[in-house]
Amino acid sequence: MTTFAPDVEQTIVAVRADVARLHGELVRYGLVVWTGGNVSGRVPGADLFVIKPSGVSYDDLAPENMILCDLDGVVVPGTPGSDRSPSSDTAAHAYVYRHMPEVGGVVHTHSTYAVAWAARGEEIPCVITAMADEFGGPIPVGPFAIIGDDSIGRGIVQTLHGHRSRAVLMQNHGPFTIGTDAKDAVKAAVMVEDVARTVHHAREAGPLVPIPQEAIDSLFHRYQNVYGQSADTRR
Amino acid sequence: MTTFAPDVEQTIVAVRADVARLHGELVRYGLVVWTGGNVSGRVPGADLFVIKPSGVSYDDLAPENMILCDLDGVVVPGTPGSDRSPSSDTAAHAYVYRHMPEVGGVVHTHSTYAVAWAARGEEIPCVITAMADEFGGPIPVGPFAIIGDDSIGRGIVQTLHGHRSRAVLMQNHGPFTIGTDAKDAVKAAVMVEDVARTVHHAREAGPLVPIPQEAIDSLFHRYQNVYGQSADTRR
Amino acid sequence: MTTFAPDVEQTIVAVRADVARLHGELVRYGLVVWTGGNVSGRVPGADLFVIKPSGVSYDDLAPENMILCDLDGVVVPGTPGSDRSPSSDTAAHAYVYRHMPEVGGVVHTHSTYAVAWAARGEEIPCVITAMADEFGGPIPVGPFAIIGDDSIGRGIVQTLHGHRSRAVLMQNHGPFTIGTDAKDAVKAAVMVEDVARTVHHAREAGPLVPIPQEAIDSLFHRYQNVYGQSADTRR
Amino acid sequence: MTTFAPDVEQTIVAVRADVARLHGELVRYGLVVWTGGNVSGRVPGADLFVIKPSGVSYDDLAPENMILCDLDGVVVPGTPGSDRSPSSDTAAHAYVYRHMPEVGGVVHTHSTYAVAWAARGEEIPCVITAMADEFGGPIPVGPFAIIGDDSIGRGIVQTLHGHRSRAVLMQNHGPFTIGTDAKDAVKAAVMVEDVARTVHHAREAGPLVPIPQEAIDSLFHRYQNVYGQSADTRR
Repeated sequence: MTTFAPDVEQTIVAVRADVARLHGELVRYGLVVWTGGNVSGRVPGADLFVIKPSGVSYDDLAPENMILCDLDGVVVPGTPGSDRSPSSDTAAHAYVYRHMPEVGGVVHTHSTYAVAWAARGEEIPCVITAMADEFGGPIPVGPFAIIGDDSIGRGIVQTLHGHRSRAVLMQNHGPFTIGTDAKDAVKAAVMVEDVARTVHHAREAGPLVPIPQEAIDSLFHRYQNVYGQSADTRR
Repeated sequence: MTTFAPDVEQTIVAVRADVARLHGELVRYGLVVWTGGNVSGRVPGADLFVIKPSGVSYDDLAPENMILCDLDGVVVPGTPGSDRSPSSDTAAHAYVYRHMPEVGGVVHTHSTYAVAWAARGEEIPCVITAMADEFGGPIPVGPFAIIGDDSIGRGIVQTLHGHRSRAVLMQNHGPFTIGTDAKDAVKAAVMVEDVARTVHHAREAGPLVPIPQEAIDSLFHRYQNVYGQSADTRR
Repeated sequence: MTTFAPDVEQTIVAVRADVARLHGELVRYGLVVWTGGNVSGRVPGADLFVIKPSGVSYDDLAPENMILCDLDGVVVPGTPGSDRSPSSDTAAHAYVYRHMPEVGGVVHTHSTYAVAWAARGEEIPCVITAMADEFGGPIPVGPFAIIGDDSIGRGIVQTLHGHRSRAVLMQNHGPFTIGTDAKDAVKAAVMVEDVARTVHHAREAGPLVPIPQEAIDSLFHRYQNVYGQSADTRR
Repeated sequence: MTTFAPDVEQTIVAVRADVARLHGELVRYGLVVWTGGNVSGRVPGADLFVIKPSGVSYDDLAPENMILCDLDGVVVPGTPGSDRSPSSDTAAHAYVYRHMPEVGGVVHTHSTYAVAWAARGEEIPCVITAMADEFGGPIPVGPFAIIGDDSIGRGIVQTLHGHRSRAVLMQNHGPFTIGTDAKDAVKAAVMVEDVARTVHHAREAGPLVPIPQEAIDSLFHRYQNVYGQSADTRR
């Protein structure tokens, strides 16, 4: 059985609770069906993260069956939930945490409209102000990659490194989002589906009006710095 | 701490309760995600209005954390909720209240289909009788404007002043609606998404049948004067 | 105050309960927003029907505020709910009951996809077996007519008289459905939106495969005579 | 009254509970309206299966009104629910159980997007990785067949025999899915609508990027053998 210093243990308990609860937001916003989709959260101050178990119903998610992993995606033995397998996307989450130290949360879904753009390998153009606020420009497409090695994680990091967007559409696969913590990444997952759906319908019916780049820049800058309550930026 | 005459205080309490509760209707009808969208209501008999705090979850909205502002959009100090920032759209709401004294409620959402029309800068044609009833003609488009000065508020007022429609689609942004009170403005927000969605799908599949102007006029006139229970017109 | 023989009174009470409860099905299946839509049910054995009050929230519908009308659509004075106005579509319901004695229930909604077909004045072709079962062929379009005289009721009756379909799409307006009782008409309202949506999406993506007429006939005949529990045909 | 050995009786009770409960998943995922759709489950170790009664509301489904049938689709007399008619699709379910001994569950729905592909007689191409995981390639179309003889069951079996897909789109009708048990077949019904909807929207907006066959093969193989908790593969 693995033990931690009391303050780390306390942080792990808090992250387990957050990650378990935040899966409910994926259900609330219709981003997942059956057992698809997963949320993870980094444990601040430790080389650890918490993620959903593989193939378990959203009705059965609780803090104690979330799974604690190290940054190689290996389950920490002797911790709650460690008798189960972690999400099959664990390697991709781990790769992101290893290579993007500023990231505190990762989310993956197969939400309908985001996947539709991904199946065409097409980025979502930034034609609505809410998208400029939240993503600062288009949502980019990442490479085609399949499970089995680091290629999904590498594709996410290469696409999002230095990009304003916290969301990437992995080609033929679906969206991965990152955030300062798990909640921020879940917000990005909710917003990417919202803009994917809205821009899909907008464009089906005729030509879109572009937003001038300087307006996009201004909206993004304001939103990242001013929006929301001061202690809880961007949430 | 700011205090008011007892009758004004009582009215403020009632408007706070209405505005808090009416945000639930935005959720019920799927017009908002996460913390997006906002409802405000004028305090009758005072130069005040009540609006949602910025970036707060719909699960956490209660009368006492709604925010009281004056008609310049400045938070009234020492009142419940005044330690928080009001909605980032407060300046636009305030502008409307200052320039349209007949308006008692304002609502803003990023509802999917209304935003889709806004992203094309295209008004919604009046081809269904429910739309003639409620809006008396097409839903107009307002100018592109971004947060930071009075340009959003000015765009709303210029577009809706003297127009039958209680809804405007601000270009690349989304719908703003007005009403005799907050509930009436929420109804307009619900209806504008409903007609935006219906006319979107209708037109995708072929040419629309226009409604003769005199029928639109007749439906609008009847609905504004006859529909509903006598003491509660248009609700 | 109007009084009835005890058995008629008992029947009225039962129809009030059915009609109030069945409005909940319109909400459950997403066929209505705000106060739109209405259900009515004939009182068997009397020249009366029960209908929704005008402009009242779906949250506030209860048996005792449903409104009892005679077959001219006049509210029966001194009965529960008679202090309120009945649905603004009451004249159309009354016309149907007067001219189609076999009809025991009428429903009207502005459900999205059914209205979309109506805005093009286009009938829904019968290309799915569930539609052959339920409607026995295409869903027809009725004439453009506005509130104020008998023209809506007349349009419904002229279109549905002798037609297999229990649903008509009134042009630029929306669906009206009829049934052996209120529940049967509500089922038709649910099914007409379901087939309107499915056939809309089917046709957007390419040519439809027609169903041979003899198969449509066979399915319709079987469903009307065999489906369901024996004492409760077609429900 | 028919009686069974205690262990068979116990198994029947468990399958009744599963089948009744799993109908709730069809409602949760919006795959059915009114009384449409049906789930059945084979009774392991006996030539029996349990299926939904015909034309009964989803609110009224309980283990004791599920219906026990033999593999010819004949109701077993003197068992709970045997006074009611089984689903009108019982003959098709029975045909599948007789001819595919590896099948433990069958589901039929009229879910919107799956029916839309069926109305065009068009298979769903495999362009998203979740579909490669779950179905191993395209979702095939089965022949047009109507109720009344074995032609629906025969069409399902001929299409799915030896096919990777657990779902078939019966032309002009809708999806039938199979699984190792009722839950697995329900999962397939949920997933077939999910991919039908996603690929529909994807293709409406432009050309799809194909997935290389070897990637499809690799994803399918991994998912069938590795995904999920070890004792509960593919759920």
